[in-house]
Amino acid sequence: MNRSIPAATVSRLPIYLRSLNDLPSGQSTCSSEDLAEIAGVNSAQVRKDLSYLGSPGVRGVGYHVADLREVLRQALGLTQGYAVVIVGAGHLGTALGNYGGFEAWGFSVVAVLDADVEKVGTMVGGRAVEAMERLEEIVAAREVSIGIIATPMEAAQEIAERLTAAGVRSILNFAPTVLRVAPGIEVRRVDLSTELQILTFHLQASGA
Amino acid sequence: MNRSIPAATVSRLPIYLRSLNDLPSGQSTCSSEDLAEIAGVNSAQVRKDLSYLGSPGVRGVGYHVADLREVLRQALGLTQGYAVVIVGAGHLGTALGNYGGFEAWGFSVVAVLDADVEKVGTMVGGRAVEAMERLEEIVAAREVSIGIIATPMEAAQEIAERLTAAGVRSILNFAPTVLRVAPGIEVRRVDLSTELQILTFHLQASGA
Repeated sequence: MNRSIPAATVSRLPIYLRSLNDLPSGQSTCSSEDLAEIAGVNSAQVRKDLSYLGSPGVRGVGYHVADLREVLRQALGLTQGYAVVIVGAGHLGTALGNYGGFEAWGFSVVAVLDADVEKVGTMVGGRAVEAMERLEEIVAAREVSIGIIATPMEAAQEIAERLTAAGVRSILNFAPTVLRVAPGIEVRRVDLSTELQILTFHLQASGA
Repeated sequence: MNRSIPAATVSRLPIYLRSLNDLPSGQSTCSSEDLAEIAGVNSAQVRKDLSYLGSPGVRGVGYHVADLREVLRQALGLTQGYAVVIVGAGHLGTALGNYGGFEAWGFSVVAVLDADVEKVGTMVGGRAVEAMERLEEIVAAREVSIGIIATPMEAAQEIAERLTAAGVRSILNFAPTVLRVAPGIEVRRVDLSTELQILTFHLQASGA
């Protein structure tokens, strides 16, 4: 079932899940309009998106909050934990390692790696930075399924290849470069400089 | 001219600009194929995207690297500096304030604000955190054009309203919520939990 859900729908599922947490506590059902309002889409889109999950809504009632939360968590694969490795302990990798927010979503940072021997052994988020050459060993031993790449641009492609060769299936890439990966490997890119430049494009275009 | 460029093209312009920096130094011209290879799109798309900027390519020659860089920088509004305020000095706001990468792209972080009096006066990125009630005064006095929201979800909408009322036209939102803003205000959202949940969706769907 999951394989046939459109990518745009997948990208909204986390927003719906979060919207349920925004409902007043004690509210046991919600309408597609409730979710649409909080998620910032229209209610027809909500109904269509959720119909991919087996149409958990009930006509005249809407959605049972607890049921829908469970359906969304199942679809998003959030009923199990995921081990994450952060590769690169520069400004951004250190920030991510110190972030602390990952655990709340069910992700466990099991290692922070860096190629610089000076950084190995320094503490990031309560964890000692480990040497890059241990990447393959750590991915295998700690059952890492998600790799976060926070290296300089030049190193990112090689790290992506080492991560996927070691068994990592999903990559969150903060390096400002497009990664080439094998089919079946999922890459999401978070690129602050691109986001900021899109903002300045609009500032410029509007004459601000 | 800029107003009519499709959003998808705008989102690729920063990638092309970066691609020029990836070319071997000393290379004075490049083809659309060169850019396509580095940017991870096809060459017809490159030519189409760049034609929106006044078609700076020359048949049989390609693009002059220096000229194209200048055209892209102009289009993206990168020929001037931008003052940025970071609102929220929690884990993420502190990480962003310490990041140091913004300056390299022409953005200057001129203030970090927090509502918590305990945080006011603490140092983030070499700058003392300032009180949230000074937001309007700081935006005006330091000519802030970009606001980065790194507050808890509950506070984000009110901060967006205060920023835009004070004159900020562009917002980069790290809070996990959809902001409602007036027409003409540009919001880009960076949402780590959504990106991670999209990855786990695919891990789950592929049976990993």
